[in-house]
Amino acid sequence: MGADHPPHRLAEGVEKAVHAAPDAAFTLFLSPEASPSVQEIVAKFLWEGKRVELSLWPEVIQQQDEPLGALRKKRKSSLVQGIRALKRRRVDAFISCGNTGALFISSSLYLPRLSGIRRPALLAHVPTQHGQLAVLDVGSSLQCKAAHLIGYAELGASFKRIQGLPRPKVGLLNVGIESRKGTLEHQHTYDKLKALAAQMGLFDFVGNVEGRAIFQNPLDVLVTDGFTGNVFLKTLEGAGQFILEQFAKLLEPSKLDDVKSLLSHREYPGAILLGVEGLVMKCHGDAAPHTLFQGIIKVIDYVKQGIIPKLRSERAEYLSSAADVAQGGEQGPV
Amino acid sequence: MGADHPPHRLAEGVEKAVHAAPDAAFTLFLSPEASPSVQEIVAKFLWEGKRVELSLWPEVIQQQDEPLGALRKKRKSSLVQGIRALKRRRVDAFISCGNTGALFISSSLYLPRLSGIRRPALLAHVPTQHGQLAVLDVGSSLQCKAAHLIGYAELGASFKRIQGLPRPKVGLLNVGIESRKGTLEHQHTYDKLKALAAQMGLFDFVGNVEGRAIFQNPLDVLVTDGFTGNVFLKTLEGAGQFILEQFAKLLEPSKLDDVKSLLSHREYPGAILLGVEGLVMKCHGDAAPHTLFQGIIKVIDYVKQGIIPKLRSERAEYLSSAADVAQGGEQGPV
Repeated sequence: MGADHPPHRLAEGVEKAVHAAPDAAFTLFLSPEASPSVQEIVAKFLWEGKRVELSLWPEVIQQQDEPLGALRKKRKSSLVQGIRALKRRRVDAFISCGNTGALFISSSLYLPRLSGIRRPALLAHVPTQHGQLAVLDVGSSLQCKAAHLIGYAELGASFKRIQGLPRPKVGLLNVGIESRKGTLEHQHTYDKLKALAAQMGLFDFVGNVEGRAIFQNPLDVLVTDGFTGNVFLKTLEGAGQFILEQFAKLLEPSKLDDVKSLLSHREYPGAILLGVEGLVMKCHGDAAPHTLFQGIIKVIDYVKQGIIPKLRSERAEYLSSAADVAQGGEQGPV
Repeated sequence: MGADHPPHRLAEGVEKAVHAAPDAAFTLFLSPEASPSVQEIVAKFLWEGKRVELSLWPEVIQQQDEPLGALRKKRKSSLVQGIRALKRRRVDAFISCGNTGALFISSSLYLPRLSGIRRPALLAHVPTQHGQLAVLDVGSSLQCKAAHLIGYAELGASFKRIQGLPRPKVGLLNVGIESRKGTLEHQHTYDKLKALAAQMGLFDFVGNVEGRAIFQNPLDVLVTDGFTGNVFLKTLEGAGQFILEQFAKLLEPSKLDDVKSLLSHREYPGAILLGVEGLVMKCHGDAAPHTLFQGIIKVIDYVKQGIIPKLRSERAEYLSSAADVAQGGEQGPV
């Protein structure tokens, strides 16, 4: 609900995911009063029996709603109730193409946070020559202090560590590579990440990174405030689309498909929210059914990997290392 | 001086420009003590006679220098003296691949500002389906209030008007298209630009623009804070390079050249500084000789067009329209 595409269009993506993931169960949080097309969805999924459950609510938080006000007034919305179902463990993960702010705030309010995390972050992946680059935050918090950016680095590094990278390479998105580039907050973040990486050895800090270098240099995690991260991500998508169109004039359409699927945002799963104890995915507001399908398949994979419990134990290890470093710090070198 | 490439490498770009622009005269601001290769440049340009003048100074502002401190300590640097030569009208334009902050602050300090402009801005062009999109600010001011963003919109619109677009389309780079997206500063900027566009009719305000839509929608001016604008620009360059590399695997090299020159930042002239009465161009710190050549040719074109006096009169017209609107505002509609 509350996405750019109407629910019955997005339901095509759900239907595809139901077929592709026979070992998963689905709950659709819907508001029949808000959209007549929800009736079509009910009809479509009746045949699925117990694998697809419908959870019906009277309210919808819309894209243009002011998030905090909407959460206060619309507790019986599909978005809030989806997050509450996640909190009560009735579902293992929650996916939304709706209002980012409302999703972020309700997740932060209702779900427990990973220990020591002040502010959760939305993480998205960007394909580079060296694999999948995790970028966070991509739009949940528009303005960030150094403490938040440092938290994002820790979260992103934890995320990559539980995916099998023992020492992820972390960079800070900035306007130049020198240590004094960016705002004071960036400079503090730089210093602190450099010290943390050296003290704890759980990630490498490669320093400041420019948008140009992201695709060439080996990098696993890119740290940024949500405003810049959101612009960064959408600019990549827009540039990819534009360049494809230029090339489409030169090439036969048949050869384009592989590159298109690499570059088009419709093929990316959404951004996942890191820092809360619950698996929340945010898809684009204009997500097409196929994008939603990709997101669902990805989130099922995350559930199977157990990324939330893994993140929790990774975080505990991290904090215990940090405590060791802090205790040892009185004798040891800075 | 103070660029990523040594002076004698960049001199190749200058040499090419000297040949390509037989009606232009050049002054090179150099610091022989800072780089032995400056001797090579002196030798190289001796044959040019009076068309290439060398202006030699003992100090260099480096990329990593803190701008304000560097300006105080290094008044006899090539950068400061170049700007002062511009102020004294010994040159018509000044191009630098050096420290952006020092260039911006010395331009703001030494050059008169266009009337009513609180903060100059660096403008760069990005090619889209609809032509050349002017983006400002791309890195001179990392944090911006609404008043600065509004000033950027006015400057960008003036720039496009003097290039023959009577009613440029201006957009605000944001994380969504709804009017309440972004920070409070973005929201104030949105409201004010909407009102200004309606009252004065000198530009159209198309509202908030996402990175994805920039290449598809007709847009002439994109307004952003310098941090986001810088990341935006460099991300486009990085993405273009990356996608080209993917395609290079499919295509013969011979067919790639046209698309490469469209997309590679080495083909873009640098960013020009708007808001001061002097033509200042900032090229990338890692500008190759060919980029510098492109920048020189572009800036000569701007000098010939007389963009600084044109901007001044455009600005005067703009302010007089604004005064009319303010006077008429008591009777007229809001």
